[in-house]
Amino acid sequence: MESEKPQNPSPMEPQEEGSNKISKKEAAKLERQRRRQEAAAAAAATAVSIVSIEESDPLSGNYGDVELNDLQSKAVTGRKWTEVGSVTPEMKDQVVLIRGRVQTIRPVGKKIAFVVVRERGFTVQCVLTVKPELVSSQMVKYATSLSKESIVDVEGVVTIPEKPITGATQQQVEVQISKLYGVNRAVPTLPINIEDAARSEVEIEQALEKGEQLVRVNQDTRLNFRILDMRTPANQGIFRIQCQVENIFRQFLLSEGFVGIHTPKLIGGSSEGGSAVFRLDYKGQPACLAQSPQLHKQMAICGDFGRVFEVGPVFRAEDSFTHRHLCEFTGLDVEMEIKEHYSEVMDVVDRLFVAMFDSLNEKCKKELEAIGRQYPFEPLKYLRKTLRLTFAEGIQMLKEAGVEVDPLGDLNTESERKLGQLVADKYGTEFYILHKYPQAVRPFYTMPCHDNPSYSNSFDVFIRGEEIISGAQRVHVPEFLEKRAGECGIDVKTISTYIDSFRYGAPPHGGFGVGLERVVMLFCALNNIRKTSLFPRDPQRLAP
Amino acid sequence: MESEKPQNPSPMEPQEEGSNKISKKEAAKLERQRRRQEAAAAAAATAVSIVSIEESDPLSGNYGDVELNDLQSKAVTGRKWTEVGSVTPEMKDQVVLIRGRVQTIRPVGKKIAFVVVRERGFTVQCVLTVKPELVSSQMVKYATSLSKESIVDVEGVVTIPEKPITGATQQQVEVQISKLYGVNRAVPTLPINIEDAARSEVEIEQALEKGEQLVRVNQDTRLNFRILDMRTPANQGIFRIQCQVENIFRQFLLSEGFVGIHTPKLIGGSSEGGSAVFRLDYKGQPACLAQSPQLHKQMAICGDFGRVFEVGPVFRAEDSFTHRHLCEFTGLDVEMEIKEHYSEVMDVVDRLFVAMFDSLNEKCKKELEAIGRQYPFEPLKYLRKTLRLTFAEGIQMLKEAGVEVDPLGDLNTESERKLGQLVADKYGTEFYILHKYPQAVRPFYTMPCHDNPSYSNSFDVFIRGEEIISGAQRVHVPEFLEKRAGECGIDVKTISTYIDSFRYGAPPHGGFGVGLERVVMLFCALNNIRKTSLFPRDPQRLAP
Repeated sequence: MESEKPQNPSPMEPQEEGSNKISKKEAAKLERQRRRQEAAAAAAATAVSIVSIEESDPLSGNYGDVELNDLQSKAVTGRKWTEVGSVTPEMKDQVVLIRGRVQTIRPVGKKIAFVVVRERGFTVQCVLTVKPELVSSQMVKYATSLSKESIVDVEGVVTIPEKPITGATQQQVEVQISKLYGVNRAVPTLPINIEDAARSEVEIEQALEKGEQLVRVNQDTRLNFRILDMRTPANQGIFRIQCQVENIFRQFLLSEGFVGIHTPKLIGGSSEGGSAVFRLDYKGQPACLAQSPQLHKQMAICGDFGRVFEVGPVFRAEDSFTHRHLCEFTGLDVEMEIKEHYSEVMDVVDRLFVAMFDSLNEKCKKELEAIGRQYPFEPLKYLRKTLRLTFAEGIQMLKEAGVEVDPLGDLNTESERKLGQLVADKYGTEFYILHKYPQAVRPFYTMPCHDNPSYSNSFDVFIRGEEIISGAQRVHVPEFLEKRAGECGIDVKTISTYIDSFRYGAPPHGGFGVGLERVVMLFCALNNIRKTSLFPRDPQRLAP
Repeated sequence: MESEKPQNPSPMEPQEEGSNKISKKEAAKLERQRRRQEAAAAAAATAVSIVSIEESDPLSGNYGDVELNDLQSKAVTGRKWTEVGSVTPEMKDQVVLIRGRVQTIRPVGKKIAFVVVRERGFTVQCVLTVKPELVSSQMVKYATSLSKESIVDVEGVVTIPEKPITGATQQQVEVQISKLYGVNRAVPTLPINIEDAARSEVEIEQALEKGEQLVRVNQDTRLNFRILDMRTPANQGIFRIQCQVENIFRQFLLSEGFVGIHTPKLIGGSSEGGSAVFRLDYKGQPACLAQSPQLHKQMAICGDFGRVFEVGPVFRAEDSFTHRHLCEFTGLDVEMEIKEHYSEVMDVVDRLFVAMFDSLNEKCKKELEAIGRQYPFEPLKYLRKTLRLTFAEGIQMLKEAGVEVDPLGDLNTESERKLGQLVADKYGTEFYILHKYPQAVRPFYTMPCHDNPSYSNSFDVFIRGEEIISGAQRVHVPEFLEKRAGECGIDVKTISTYIDSFRYGAPPHGGFGVGLERVVMLFCALNNIRKTSLFPRDPQRLAP
């Protein structure tokens, strides 16, 4: 970025007056002065124009706050930028240009300052040392004036420290700062400090044992200042994992002939006739937000797409205020023709999730480590071929363990957790499928079992004892679907579009729905779904 | 699927009475009868139990409607299914099992019937010919009883026809039917016929010239019966292309270090303070549906994700009833840190879309051909390096062509289209970027130009003279953002969360938003955005 402004004159510099004769000493002084001014001019020309806090410094072009005008796309200079995460010992003696945040500043006297710069979760220690004609004491003073979390541009030479830098992710390198510009300052006092937000419970408790009280940032405060909270290494990891979960989901399904679709979130009736929906006025018509893409993804199957998936928001106006419910979450939905049996759907679940877990463990090591440092967890135990138990078998296992549950009712959260433990103990897996649920606890469109109408061709899938997936074969015959809806107390007229779509020849089909946030939460054994939603929505939270 | 029912006895078959002595002729007859019964038993054992319309036929196990009970996941037989699209001459003499739809049935006398079976847009001609002990005349009668669009299972041997079958996509093969089961029947009279819905305007007009009136299915009827409309080859192509557009968008960005995120659609204020929003009650709080992920994707940048993208629904309660507006569409959004210049954002647009167009042309040939057969179009003209013109240059081109437009106003649809023509003529491209728009026509958060505040660091992107992308550098300094909001008449208090998120150190950044449906519509030169939305929502349509 070339500056259009004249180089900074130094008005406070002493001027020669009324003399043509210049002593050798003075000549040398002038020469030094000229060189400094040249250096400043060069700095000003290659860098942006800056607002120096020390106008008297001939090296003032090497540091200072960048003017807004220079950040308004003034020019394309072709300068090369280096990412903090890629600064390694191989770059020794190279000059690097970095843009990042001031994580910490530690002055040592007036001549040295250590600045830890962070970019996307990676940190590098940068050192500012007063050196004649390179770094002025005013520059060190400027550095210490920068507030934490301010965005800065740092230019400097990569060096190898004697001892590894434990306070940075790039432990084998330092950067000797030659230029330092403030790009955008953060307010001096932040509502939460990143180091506080990044602290593990273990660290807080260990400090407490030593009589030291460290700040604990609670969940609600984190969410109120989510923009700061997001910057912790754990959160950088969590949302990169989330992105990968979705990506593997999509790539796996695409490779198996599924088509990604988008179904409307604005619908005329209540999407499943079940739990509470968000209602709104749509140009004078009553409308609501889809509680799932269930009906439309089935329509896509009736529309000959064969196998479809959708990734999109799902809205539930329920009043659940638990660790695992949100009013808006990201649904991963699948629907597919089946030839004979709902096990074809479970086969997809099986292969998809084993592939997903394998890939996360293999490709997201850094992210999982970052999460584990703040929220320690054991890697998920899962089998190469996913365990399938029938609901009746699950009930029997619970019974043998002394837990009596209704064999035709649903499992509550506690029984699910207990069964998860029993399964983990017996089969060595924390990921399994429970199928053939009682018909009474499934939606009207679930296909009953061929030999016992009290049970259904349905399944749930569990990670660490918590449900993440619900799936089933659907009723594809319109007359039977009407009968089932009626039995479930649903006014058939309200879902006539849905039922009608099966009148034009519907293939047998099934599918499942997954909560993206739940997968990430449970894979990483996190204790709250709000940790895996970027901007969570619950009955009490609609901001930020 | 193994049948649990006993084999069909043939109650109408003549029985031997009061005689132990059996003539040679009778013995032969009994032997034939035994063989028939064995064949029926074998058929019943390997296939499902069926409801035969001809109980008197000893071959009745080879055809008939499948009972619902047999479609309720009765068993896993391990039978192999062949997709219609994969039946090729290399499979000559092989027995194939196909599930598909009855597209057409053409009986020839009482002994032959041609059944064209369709699966996911592919069709194959199946032939039913009466043959002793294999195919009965009752079976042919049964076949002709099937309604169009019914789902059937066909088993038969692949043969090579003397002449290519022009009425099917698999022109080099036929299937000689040995078994035919009705899996799910469509209603006898469909509201629209697939062949009518699949007809091109050209065909209708050519027929008209010959004095023949063919059915034209209008857009609204199509959408009312979208499930049937979806089954046309063109629509099978359109939504597979849509899936690919999204997939390439995601894969390209992931390969460049972008992170996929999900931001909330339920928000407290109006997302951009601009056009009409859908309002709703959120647990007693006033809320609305996000008009774009603009504010939240910028927050993700302030939260250190560096480069993010989102694919998700976007809601606009506008009353626009045009060929290019929807009340709900799929937004492809990008936001990224920039080092110096908004051209960095345009660079991403450039490479992303060139990669996308290349990939579509290369990998979606069949889909593009299917679309082109119903809606003929010329392939999109685009350059290896995307043309960039400034808004002022565009205005000048229009002026030279005799079109006067306000140099500080926006282009209307007509001027955009005209400029698209001029650009195509002069530069040979139908895809280009127009940048440096007047500040007055862009949102408050758009960064003004460094040297002229009447212009902004913004751009639009056009395909075939229609806008598909809007992008810009954003204001990242909170004080300046407040000033800009105020100048645009926005109550700063209503967007305080947004503005506050820039107070904790925001990097310079920019981004863009794309309408998925528009990209598909314009790449394929379709005339209405409702053609590229699976279940479109406009001011008059909230169903199906």
